[in-house]
Amino acid sequence: MRIYDIIDKKRHAKELSKEEIEFVISSYMKDEIKDYQISALLMAICINSMSEAETSYLTNAILNSGDVLDLSSLNGYTVDKHSTGGIGDKTTLIVAPIVASLGCTVAKMSGRGLGFTGGTVDKLESIEGFKTELSPADFLSQAKDIGIVVVGQSADLAPADKKLYALRDVTATIDSIPLIASSIMSKKLASGSKSIVLDVKVGSGAFMKTVDDAEKLANAMVKLGKGFDRNVTAVLTNMNAPLGLAVGNSVELWEAMEVLSGRGEQNLKALCLTVSSCMVSSALSLELDVARDMVENAISTGKALAKFYEWIEYQGGNTSKIRDSSALLGAKYKKSILAEREGYISSLDAQAVGTASMMLGAGRIKKEDKIDHSAGIILNKRVGDFVTKSEPIAMMYTSNEALFDSASNLFLGGVSYSNKMPTQNPLIYKIIK
Amino acid sequence: MRIYDIIDKKRHAKELSKEEIEFVISSYMKDEIKDYQISALLMAICINSMSEAETSYLTNAILNSGDVLDLSSLNGYTVDKHSTGGIGDKTTLIVAPIVASLGCTVAKMSGRGLGFTGGTVDKLESIEGFKTELSPADFLSQAKDIGIVVVGQSADLAPADKKLYALRDVTATIDSIPLIASSIMSKKLASGSKSIVLDVKVGSGAFMKTVDDAEKLANAMVKLGKGFDRNVTAVLTNMNAPLGLAVGNSVELWEAMEVLSGRGEQNLKALCLTVSSCMVSSALSLELDVARDMVENAISTGKALAKFYEWIEYQGGNTSKIRDSSALLGAKYKKSILAEREGYISSLDAQAVGTASMMLGAGRIKKEDKIDHSAGIILNKRVGDFVTKSEPIAMMYTSNEALFDSASNLFLGGVSYSNKMPTQNPLIYKIIK
Repeated sequence: MRIYDIIDKKRHAKELSKEEIEFVISSYMKDEIKDYQISALLMAICINSMSEAETSYLTNAILNSGDVLDLSSLNGYTVDKHSTGGIGDKTTLIVAPIVASLGCTVAKMSGRGLGFTGGTVDKLESIEGFKTELSPADFLSQAKDIGIVVVGQSADLAPADKKLYALRDVTATIDSIPLIASSIMSKKLASGSKSIVLDVKVGSGAFMKTVDDAEKLANAMVKLGKGFDRNVTAVLTNMNAPLGLAVGNSVELWEAMEVLSGRGEQNLKALCLTVSSCMVSSALSLELDVARDMVENAISTGKALAKFYEWIEYQGGNTSKIRDSSALLGAKYKKSILAEREGYISSLDAQAVGTASMMLGAGRIKKEDKIDHSAGIILNKRVGDFVTKSEPIAMMYTSNEALFDSASNLFLGGVSYSNKMPTQNPLIYKIIK
Repeated sequence: MRIYDIIDKKRHAKELSKEEIEFVISSYMKDEIKDYQISALLMAICINSMSEAETSYLTNAILNSGDVLDLSSLNGYTVDKHSTGGIGDKTTLIVAPIVASLGCTVAKMSGRGLGFTGGTVDKLESIEGFKTELSPADFLSQAKDIGIVVVGQSADLAPADKKLYALRDVTATIDSIPLIASSIMSKKLASGSKSIVLDVKVGSGAFMKTVDDAEKLANAMVKLGKGFDRNVTAVLTNMNAPLGLAVGNSVELWEAMEVLSGRGEQNLKALCLTVSSCMVSSALSLELDVARDMVENAISTGKALAKFYEWIEYQGGNTSKIRDSSALLGAKYKKSILAEREGYISSLDAQAVGTASMMLGAGRIKKEDKIDHSAGIILNKRVGDFVTKSEPIAMMYTSNEALFDSASNLFLGGVSYSNKMPTQNPLIYKIIK
């Protein structure tokens, strides 16, 4: 088999075989195929696409490039969730304890964030004592004991995806449905859960710019999952604004606890209810409306919040420090961002809010950068709200007050005002399973 | 300007601007753009093609990546020829002296061969004393004095083409008409002649597999030439068999002299007459049939052969050694290749003949390899000829008789026999100008 012939085949829009795709991935991981050959192949795939069979072969080859977690010793109700990214996305912190409190098992390895804000693990590290590294045995026994465990990614899951993604990122070969589907699904399949709920973001800042495209991606991933004997549900959601009010690490933790306590911003709450319901429905084979009742009940009775505390303590975290919101919102310096004019907020660019939060210390630019866990932003106003001139739109939190001016300017660069109340897209477009 | 956006634009089949294409080539030459980005762009070009304007910008950018020969001090009748490759192609050795004897000026830098057989310069080095390196001043003054000079490539002509070609060669992005046209034309334009005749080969072993495709390529190059104020003529020729009878270095020199003397194999002769006529017609602005009469006359009167000797001597070559054919055919060992059965020769694979000749010592596998100038093959039979079993089909020449068996086997692997006389394609399909 020669890579030249494989590239040439895809260039001429012919279907690649399982053996050919396996050859590509395994040779690439051994550096026997060069980046410039893979990027040519990726471009041919972007333009000429891949069949369902090819996408499945590719997913399988990427999945098998590294470790595959074996969760078979757990009960059959393992469930995982994945989001295609978003500013202020703290849903894992909310939905994992909800579904665990209802008998599902969430045993999750989560990445650190790069850019904008931290990842789930960074947010959990805002809690004193919380351990994000566990031995494989402790990981499994915690999942068995309390149904929930979230650690940093220690296993080498789908390393081929990392290598391919880095190359796609610099060769304009990101937005291809078969490539995105195989990238997401290979990692989720390697993570071992039986049920998988995907939050597929739609909007100008997301991979998928239109509901149509997002639906194609969702369908591709649901089908892929079936081929690997997994239940996959995709929730198509609007990501044109940040999710919830808080963007940062400890501030997002605070907001997650707000939702678990039955409070919280309505869009974030709605999304978490939908995602948890899909997870419970899929893992326990229940109708969606039955699952939804159970989820609402878990929140209103305090079961979900209790599971959250149980989880944090089991993993070494000091919950006394977080039961009081003032600790989570206790950054050294706070300052409001004020509206520049009167009017309805017609848009609040998620990218700008994320970058401003990162600038305050909440995110990393380089892998080695240290995160200021107290840093972040909490919105006072949302898209559609009316503000008067100089009314506070958001509060900034940081350990370094010198950063306020540039963060505030960045934030305000992403705010648009209008004299008419803006029409708003629904938060949840569709559920596909 | 960002390479990412340029790749993305071509991925979506949009037209690139002059500035964008110049940015790509100049940044690539400075290694500011990586191979894996260029290969992705090349693949997008292969699949989505380029407009005439884009092809012209690309040609210009490649042309300006290195030296551009200035032949303006010569008369206005400078003419160059180019062949898209072929086994046994010794046409330069024949047409250059013909057209120089008729008042045209051929001032040519020629590459060395890699693979199969040597290039024109390697063939000329079969002649004792012949200098293939001249100073720029001597190069120009020889062209002025006798109208003909051929040296090895010392100037750095279109280095971007070399870099791009090496990458295309390993990423299945060779056969794209805009890429081939810009590659060939950038080098020819950098070579400085006013008129250019292109021998575009058509056939299974050539870049262009069909006359249709070859015609598209020829039209693209003729148009490109006009944009740079050059007269470009393309001759579409059949390359399914080796050109002429000889494949090697000194054996090809012998065959060139045969044609210049009015003898020689009919296809080779016909091609050389056509190419020379096009060169004379284009350089001197004469009708093709007038030019053809002049070319035939130059051969029959001995003018062309005299110009050949004048050229060789002017460039330091000892012509006494080549006036006698036995010296050029004087390899240490000779051996016939015998027909394996009776029948018509229905095909004689050019690739197989070329590889057999290379194996005998006539070509290089690596740049550093030394050529055995005496090595090669001369055919006794052509496609369409009838042979009896064990009749000689060809004669092998080499300095190392241990190579006979493997070369003979390779050669015979490319021979097919038939009981019926095969139909043959014409040698010259079309002239495009």
